[in-house]
Amino acid sequence: MNRCEPPSTAIPPMKDLTTENITENVHIVNSQCRDSRLRYLLERIVTHLHEFCHETRLSTEEWEAGIQFLTEIGQISNDLRHEMILLSDTLGVSLLVDSINHPRHEPATEGTVLGPFHTHDAKEKDNGAVLHNDPDATQLLVVCTIRDTDGNYISDVKIDVWEGDSKGFYDVQDPNRTGPDGRGVLRSDEEGNFFFKAIVPVPYPIPMDGPVGKMLQALGRHPNRPGHVHFMLDKPGYDLLITALYPRGDPYESSDPVFGVKESLIVDLSKVTDPAMASKYDVEMNTPLLTYDFVLLTDQQARDLRKQRAVEEMRKQKRNVVWHNGLPVPAAECQ
Amino acid sequence: MNRCEPPSTAIPPMKDLTTENITENVHIVNSQCRDSRLRYLLERIVTHLHEFCHETRLSTEEWEAGIQFLTEIGQISNDLRHEMILLSDTLGVSLLVDSINHPRHEPATEGTVLGPFHTHDAKEKDNGAVLHNDPDATQLLVVCTIRDTDGNYISDVKIDVWEGDSKGFYDVQDPNRTGPDGRGVLRSDEEGNFFFKAIVPVPYPIPMDGPVGKMLQALGRHPNRPGHVHFMLDKPGYDLLITALYPRGDPYESSDPVFGVKESLIVDLSKVTDPAMASKYDVEMNTPLLTYDFVLLTDQQARDLRKQRAVEEMRKQKRNVVWHNGLPVPAAECQ
Repeated sequence: MNRCEPPSTAIPPMKDLTTENITENVHIVNSQCRDSRLRYLLERIVTHLHEFCHETRLSTEEWEAGIQFLTEIGQISNDLRHEMILLSDTLGVSLLVDSINHPRHEPATEGTVLGPFHTHDAKEKDNGAVLHNDPDATQLLVVCTIRDTDGNYISDVKIDVWEGDSKGFYDVQDPNRTGPDGRGVLRSDEEGNFFFKAIVPVPYPIPMDGPVGKMLQALGRHPNRPGHVHFMLDKPGYDLLITALYPRGDPYESSDPVFGVKESLIVDLSKVTDPAMASKYDVEMNTPLLTYDFVLLTDQQARDLRKQRAVEEMRKQKRNVVWHNGLPVPAAECQ
Repeated sequence: MNRCEPPSTAIPPMKDLTTENITENVHIVNSQCRDSRLRYLLERIVTHLHEFCHETRLSTEEWEAGIQFLTEIGQISNDLRHEMILLSDTLGVSLLVDSINHPRHEPATEGTVLGPFHTHDAKEKDNGAVLHNDPDATQLLVVCTIRDTDGNYISDVKIDVWEGDSKGFYDVQDPNRTGPDGRGVLRSDEEGNFFFKAIVPVPYPIPMDGPVGKMLQALGRHPNRPGHVHFMLDKPGYDLLITALYPRGDPYESSDPVFGVKESLIVDLSKVTDPAMASKYDVEMNTPLLTYDFVLLTDQQARDLRKQRAVEEMRKQKRNVVWHNGLPVPAAECQ
């Protein structure tokens, strides 16, 4: 039994709230929650929110602006526009959450931000498929393998690929979108290979016409992501890998507004110079070529790493851990 | 000159982000902001958000649930429904922000939460006016004075009053609302008096049909606010007072879900037993009666208190203060 009962059913009455005891009173009321993990999350959320107000002496006008800002983010969002994810991305939260949930060690491929442009309507495509309907683009042949940390090929991995067009826009940014473009769902073959025809990626600005764009402007930050191709590699028994590959030399390589670039994900593009290869993949000679060898962790490897790092973090806080559905709760919560 | 220039124009390139350096990298990028106050707010927001993820090992599913929760709060909001304020209220943030911005000392009247039901369309009404069009309600005569801390009457204060109906609903919760009801804007007379006919307030649940309601259910919290009448007292030169009065003995007096009750705001209702009074205020004998003497701080008194408490808070953090439009920024920011 991972859960623990709340400390007591006798909730002390609250009254006469002040700046001195409000935080304690909110914790008391929330301690009625019977889910120890949710209780822990709320305890930390309330503590951080209140500390923030105390430290900054947050003004009523700033509070109103914050309420308005967060409300507008919800209001501009829909099934195809995820402004709250963009906020999380631009504050470095998405990258951090990915790193915590999908820890990696050598030689496993590092993850990066999912971003706000993934959709669930991409079509299943055969290896060799062309992703984009974009006459202005420079075609890019992408040839990859997938292995485990022992070097064994992994077949039948579901590979979700998505990429913007030659103008720097994703299909979902087109108001007249009728269906997916620049997307596909592939499968790795018996020898862990998959390949497709993308386009040479270009840098593009994250959407600047919403509240997050206004925030970046107020902060003096540029909105330009270095060009990249997104990958999501999924197979039961292996830890989900959400990542992206960035061709080297992009002007925004070291100032990505969503903090997604990692050295190990920067790739040197080459060209198809072997006629046999051009024939095999049905591309013209000198077509730009991206090759990459992905390495997946198993679920067990990732779980062990996550647990180890959670224990290390709790030790830093001088707390022992109990586990609630695989997630940590301070042991003190149960005492 | 309160502002200080950002530390340097040379932003070190970011790369190879990890759980260890992501926070520092976000701070580096945000340090481009030329507004020292906004830079300080962002530094604290990012630090708290990242600490929260580290401490809790926030799972991807929890992050997604949080993104979805906040997005839905924006989507259910409109001009008459302010779900984000309700979230702030139920986490104790609104009360805390009010206390920080409108500090009080004896004998000034304490403030409390504005709540999500204030509107800007209430009509100007004469003293003695009836607020509600509610045949089922028990009328309540409200007779108040307003003074400064030296006991001098304050005339011509704009008093915004709002209250739910006898079923516990505010007018804005009525989908067929055609205009304001249970609201009015009054003025204090030469002797600082104002009076009107409200109804005996009843407890009511905060809206439970949205994301905040779901949160309260998950936390095992009840939604019932003790009955009250809202007041906003505004006059140039005096510190804005947003408050509410709570008749004593309400079953939810000591477990208010938005942490709004303070001992000094609980009132004992009496009855109109003097025929001269009944005649003067045009009410029947034995009409329930609420009397209250409000005491306002001047702008200067409130400003001095705010500044003093900000300095005390920064001293706790072992930081010196510089002022930016009257709001504190750590002095280290300018060094």
